[in-house]
Amino acid sequence: MIDRLSILGLGLIGGSIARGARERRLARKITAWNRTPAVLEEALAARAIDLAAASPAEAVRGADLVILAVPVLAAPALGLEVRRHAPASAVITDAGSTKESIVAAMEAPSAGGAPFVGGHPIAGTENSGFAASRGNLFEGAPFILTPTARTEAAAAAKVETFWAGLGSRVYRLAPGEHDRLFALISHLPHLAAYALVGAVFSGLDDREEAARYMGGGFRDFTRIAASDPAMWRDICLDNRRHLLHALDLLESELSFIRQALSSGEAKTLEAIFAKARSRKKAACQPGT
Amino acid sequence: MIDRLSILGLGLIGGSIARGARERRLARKITAWNRTPAVLEEALAARAIDLAAASPAEAVRGADLVILAVPVLAAPALGLEVRRHAPASAVITDAGSTKESIVAAMEAPSAGGAPFVGGHPIAGTENSGFAASRGNLFEGAPFILTPTARTEAAAAAKVETFWAGLGSRVYRLAPGEHDRLFALISHLPHLAAYALVGAVFSGLDDREEAARYMGGGFRDFTRIAASDPAMWRDICLDNRRHLLHALDLLESELSFIRQALSSGEAKTLEAIFAKARSRKKAACQPGT
Repeated sequence: MIDRLSILGLGLIGGSIARGARERRLARKITAWNRTPAVLEEALAARAIDLAAASPAEAVRGADLVILAVPVLAAPALGLEVRRHAPASAVITDAGSTKESIVAAMEAPSAGGAPFVGGHPIAGTENSGFAASRGNLFEGAPFILTPTARTEAAAAAKVETFWAGLGSRVYRLAPGEHDRLFALISHLPHLAAYALVGAVFSGLDDREEAARYMGGGFRDFTRIAASDPAMWRDICLDNRRHLLHALDLLESELSFIRQALSSGEAKTLEAIFAKARSRKKAACQPGT
Repeated sequence: MIDRLSILGLGLIGGSIARGARERRLARKITAWNRTPAVLEEALAARAIDLAAASPAEAVRGADLVILAVPVLAAPALGLEVRRHAPASAVITDAGSTKESIVAAMEAPSAGGAPFVGGHPIAGTENSGFAASRGNLFEGAPFILTPTARTEAAAAAKVETFWAGLGSRVYRLAPGEHDRLFALISHLPHLAAYALVGAVFSGLDDREEAARYMGGGFRDFTRIAASDPAMWRDICLDNRRHLLHALDLLESELSFIRQALSSGEAKTLEAIFAKARSRKKAACQPGT
């Protein structure tokens, strides 16, 4: 059990960490800071946290485990700031969707202080904010820990134990490997969903009541286009290098399909579709 | 009530029409033909049909309503063939995802015989075949009737009444308008899903166990990539002209996003995402 858990940022992820830790008795005391103080009042009222801190510095004083749950572009500066105020015995971790930049910032040679280990819970929905948080968000969900050669084994173990306690299946990847992989399986699908919705509506006349004809396929396919634009702007920018490479792959796949379509190559088109179907089915077997 | 309903093709759609018509007592007798005879045995055993015909010609003899429920590229030739054998008092319709080519074939000046009205039930899942059929597939789902200036009002009304009887909400669109709209809201999303799955897996090392990290977003987004490749090959080829235009829109949206991403234009990126989100949310309000 953690004695003092400190959570910075009480959105969907930070709020769900607080609720989950409370429900599963993973921490004796939970302190939180949030940029918008009203959310702290809400969390206190919900008994998701014990103490509302007026500043990040105050939130981490005496902490054993500090979790950064803020937008990825804000995390490195906040991480460096709170390390100046956290005990050297604390472990600092994060819950961002990109890992290279936060790990690089926190492992910079000049850094010192409490050790840092990057983390990424693969959970969340298109809804965001503390109001959408729930204590079982991470149950059965993957969590990726991104230690490096410079990470203290005990610090990594502490973070791993905490997330296993929340019910997550914990895996380990190097930060760069994580970002390359998630550019493909998460960030590119979000970009594609935003692009698809943009394209579809740019082709529709505003007066057309196309919505009445939109089947379940369109809804499912574009569900993630309802994700928080500011959060995804930050994730995309932060993972720009890997994401641009993933975008190359999508554009070249589309141009391959265009070629087959415009020249009426039925067999090629069917082969492209069949290959995608078999890969999709193999990857998304229930239980994997 | 229809006296003799004839269904050509007992896949997901044809099978569901048979089951729905039976359950709702929309037809006194249901005759079907299917390219693979084993499916007819299955349908007879399930009491979804009364008679299994050995040929399309036999299936439509004495029919009041004939429904073509075969792949879109096969429908025009089959439609012309069965019209030679159906009574002139019958109405012929179809259930394909594209409308221009079947309507053009069936309305060709030389055609004659039983009148034709195109139709498209907006239903179906990524599963296909008679085994996936169910009588309530069309309940509450949109159905689009595509009459033209040459369509007999009584023929259109007969088809409309039948689909309303299956529980569908019936709308009317001109064939070309239908195909332009569905290139955007259905065919392009399928192409994009196939392309996305292709791109993601082309970027993954085969040995990577990426599947364990794939969240619900990836599964939802790519669900339709599990759709039948041969069926979608035909739909895409048949609606090639509109679909290539829709593909232009997607490619230009992606290149707009690429530009913003590679030059770090945070505000542009957020604006693209926010616009897509608000359009998606407005279009997919529950109940619309």
